[in-house]
Amino acid sequence: MSTHITDPRAELKRKAAIEAADMVKEGMVVGLGSGSTSAFMIEELGRRWAEGLRFCAIPTSERSAEQARSHGIRLVTFATHPQIDIDIDGADEVERGTLNLIKGLGGALFREKIVAAASRRFVVVVDDSKLVDRLGVAVPVPVEVANFGWNSTARQLEALGAKVTQRLDRSGNVFVTDGGNMILDCHFGEIADSDTLQNQLDRVVGVIETGLFIGRTSEVIVATADGLQRLHAA
Amino acid sequence: MSTHITDPRAELKRKAAIEAADMVKEGMVVGLGSGSTSAFMIEELGRRWAEGLRFCAIPTSERSAEQARSHGIRLVTFATHPQIDIDIDGADEVERGTLNLIKGLGGALFREKIVAAASRRFVVVVDDSKLVDRLGVAVPVPVEVANFGWNSTARQLEALGAKVTQRLDRSGNVFVTDGGNMILDCHFGEIADSDTLQNQLDRVVGVIETGLFIGRTSEVIVATADGLQRLHAA
Repeated sequence: MSTHITDPRAELKRKAAIEAADMVKEGMVVGLGSGSTSAFMIEELGRRWAEGLRFCAIPTSERSAEQARSHGIRLVTFATHPQIDIDIDGADEVERGTLNLIKGLGGALFREKIVAAASRRFVVVVDDSKLVDRLGVAVPVPVEVANFGWNSTARQLEALGAKVTQRLDRSGNVFVTDGGNMILDCHFGEIADSDTLQNQLDRVVGVIETGLFIGRTSEVIVATADGLQRLHAA
Repeated sequence: MSTHITDPRAELKRKAAIEAADMVKEGMVVGLGSGSTSAFMIEELGRRWAEGLRFCAIPTSERSAEQARSHGIRLVTFATHPQIDIDIDGADEVERGTLNLIKGLGGALFREKIVAAASRRFVVVVDDSKLVDRLGVAVPVPVEVANFGWNSTARQLEALGAKVTQRLDRSGNVFVTDGGNMILDCHFGEIADSDTLQNQLDRVVGVIETGLFIGRTSEVIVATADGLQRLHAA
């Protein structure tokens, strides 16, 4: 982890992730987010597990599952644990005020959203570069769509005002989600009414889920150069 | 097909399916539905193909694809043919007046809906036992959901008033859709406002698509003991 520790932004995210890990108490069912901030959080939870803290966890991606397993953290499924006490995850953009989010640049948006929806509390951990006044300014809305008929789905998304690009992996092949689907990155620019947009996207046939997380956030822990900030949902 | 021909209901459906096949003209891009009525329609299109009619088709299930291929019908994909001229499919319930539908008892609802959404005209073929005053009376709404977290998704569907049963196949195993997902059959009873219900279902995280087809039908061809009836969208 030495490369991370010398990166000031990574060090900030790590501090925020440790603060979030503090919220995990003995016996809880914990949702484990995906992405670089979540990796810090899982690392910290692994440290606490080694010290004797006991909880069980539902991971939102194969990668987070692997990391948790490597620490010996007990993984469970919805079949036995349909209600999650706390879900901790990162985000690509957080809207000031509403705490609405764009997530899914890492590709795990569907599972992340399922876990968030099943959680009593949904805690988001970011560094302050992710805070925006309006969603959509800096990042596209990732939309997971069925492979079948995706061209037609893309046309419907364009009709809603998006510039659509098909997500590729690092080798230049079509990116495949854990669920076996593809992601269309939808560039809307600044989103004036994210709730309406979410409804419009939900109604597009072929859309499996979107990276807009509206009204789901309980709390955001923000890492800034001056320390940690906590933002609470109104 | 002799067993079909001696079944009076099947014979009615076959007549309606032939009437629908009449709407397929030279050079069209045709969506091929799934289920028993669609099988009659594909059989009829195969006969016309053998007589020299040329068109291309996008099937909504692996089974319909196989049947079409066996007749030599040219199959294409959305990649080259994103706009479909006419889609012909069956339904499990058709609401008089609105022509809203419940589909998906056959398990192909997601692809069927994607093809219907991409079609200029969507023609539904049923026998008159499928006509109802209100959707939901006789059949559940099939909802395709992600395998991941399905227990949690089922709880959210129950919170909307559904009695939820997990679809099983004939061997008693969990039914798997062409997309690799499962189907939860949601028994709502008589549905007073199917448009609102569709919106509510769309917003449930974990839901991929539902068997409610609202405002999509161009025309219904109904087979009755007294002959064929054609119902047009208002």
